[in-house]
Amino acid sequence: MNIEKIGEVECNGQLLAVRDALDVLNGKWKLPIIIALAHGKYRFKELHTLLGITPKMLSKELKDLEMHQLVKRSVYDSIPVSVSYSLTPYADSLRSVINSLHDWGKEHRKKVMTKENQ
Amino acid sequence: MNIEKIGEVECNGQLLAVRDALDVLNGKWKLPIIIALAHGKYRFKELHTLLGITPKMLSKELKDLEMHQLVKRSVYDSIPVSVSYSLTPYADSLRSVINSLHDWGKEHRKKVMTKENQ
Repeated sequence: MNIEKIGEVECNGQLLAVRDALDVLNGKWKLPIIIALAHGKYRFKELHTLLGITPKMLSKELKDLEMHQLVKRSVYDSIPVSVSYSLTPYADSLRSVINSLHDWGKEHRKKVMTKENQ
Repeated sequence: MNIEKIGEVECNGQLLAVRDALDVLNGKWKLPIIIALAHGKYRFKELHTLLGITPKMLSKELKDLEMHQLVKRSVYDSIPVSVSYSLTPYADSLRSVINSLHDWGKEHRKKVMTKENQ
């Protein structure tokens, strides 16, 4: 195997894992929903208001996140029935992903603003 | 300010930075293109073949990445003219984002496969 091929195999291995992550987390809303829920339990309407996401999209995204075991839906037997969403313990495994995106986003904003002010 | 409000302010601050990052990196292709280019310079056709991305989409994504100063397009005055793409030094700032997505994707695949085998 020549060096180019080794590079390609490594590249494909790295791509596979990153694609696995993106398959779960991709899109405009999944990570923002997870970040909101990291600050506490929310009801559907509260999430909708906090994030400015349409109810249809929020419903879809919450179902996806439940399927991936990142979000838990709890139904309380009150009148009217109350439903809230929270993170599962497994969602905690995303801490490093969220932190690195947060740090990069913060630095990138500074870079863009410095450029605009020049 | 009560505790709930503090949580909300913190939440909004964190959301802003992560959204800034997602605005640049979101979608199915940007990070895979960056990972491929981290393994070396590629021509347009090579990237298209390696990633299995349509030429139209690849062209759009490369332009976006150039605009965000993450990818450099180099034109060589040969016959026929040769164009290649490489990462800018700034793209190196994404190392921690890519590593954390890679690690999470790898663990998530293990988790999903363990569950399927049960």
